Amino acid sequence: MNHIEKRHHDPEKARHRRRQVLDAAAACFGRSGFHGASMAEISKAAGMSAGHIYNYFDSKDAIIAAFVEENVERIAADLRELEQQEDPLQALLDRIPQGVRDDLNPQTWFMPMEITAEASRNPKIAAVVRDADRRTRDQFRAILKRGRALHGISVDDAVLNGRMDAIITMFQGLPVRALHNPDLDPEQLIASFHLALKPLLFS
Amino acid sequence: MNHIEKRHHDPEKARHRRRQVLDAAAACFGRSGFHGASMAEISKAAGMSAGHIYNYFDSKDAIIAAFVEENVERIAADLRELEQQEDPLQALLDRIPQGVRDDLNPQTWFMPMEITAEASRNPKIAAVVRDADRRTRDQFRAILKRGRALHGISVDDAVLNGRMDAIITMFQGLPVRALHNPDLDPEQLIASFHLALKPLLFS
Repeated sequence: MNHIEKRHHDPEKARHRRRQVLDAAAACFGRSGFHGASMAEISKAAGMSAGHIYNYFDSKDAIIAAFVEENVERIAADLRELEQQEDPLQALLDRIPQGVRDDLNPQTWFMPMEITAEASRNPKIAAVVRDADRRTRDQFRAILKRGRALHGISVDDAVLNGRMDAIITMFQGLPVRALHNPDLDPEQLIASFHLALKPLLFS
Repeated sequence: MNHIEKRHHDPEKARHRRRQVLDAAAACFGRSGFHGASMAEISKAAGMSAGHIYNYFDSKDAIIAAFVEENVERIAADLRELEQQEDPLQALLDRIPQGVRDDLNPQTWFMPMEITAEASRNPKIAAVVRDADRRTRDQFRAILKRGRALHGISVDDAVLNGRMDAIITMFQGLPVRALHNPDLDPEQLIASFHLALKPLLFS
């Protein structure tokens, strides 16, 4: 997604400035929502002039796109870790507790929720989100294929895609669930995720 | 949720007017988001004066609360239908195709997505959403208990709550999934939901 990263002479300083803007934007979106927060408010929170911010991000859409990219990077790193496991299906089952706890954590899910709502009405953001999702699925599909071949339970691509979408649906539902039922018991939810994911992975 | 319904002399006319405001509000939220849409914009879209709208809704928060209530009512009606089935667990499995298709439909999920994002930053809306969810869980839990007793697979309440939260997570994740992957194959997703829900219901 190079189109969202502008070129700068001092990449280290530019990265630091971009981080400052993103942190400020996250705080403003949290207070006022994506539409409610203005570039003026974001620049004030970041302690920079609006003109200075435009050196790093063309628009609020570009800021949202940067958050999408950060999220994809976080997931890609988790998937690369999974790729290196001898038995990735079993490794996935073993990682359910951590995965569920991460996605129940408001720190993890606050921005994705804002982004999802924005994507539902803003075609540009929807395109960014869909492109990111496609890359994540490509990476995840390859892992599932290798894991299944290892266990002698290969299925055709259409079936595999359905399993994969169901698995991602479960994790993408967690932030929504946590918001609706803050009293839910993570341990019991983890046990249930184990029950549900086993047939999706191993049959 | 009587506090969100103001009293009126002509209940039929009042209901019609409330509907007009809600439809206008949905259109405005769709364009501009909850924060971006002003009461002035909503009143213009509804063809009423802002003062007139305040006869029905005190605030934008009250409008969102009315949408939450509508959604709860829709789910409660589905659950009452399930209550009347002889074997509610089997009936739930049989209803997966319809349930998945409903939740993949943007018409169904557009407002819940907006509401969830708003609930993540607005404590008043969060309280409304959580109260609604508690009522839905109470109704759903009773159905699952009876169904499980019938099959001789009762579990204690903590376990049952975990199963229930996992089931709801799967359905609440569907709108998010559909937005991220508009090319997903509903048939394959339905088959995968069947695989995952069976152990949650029957073990």
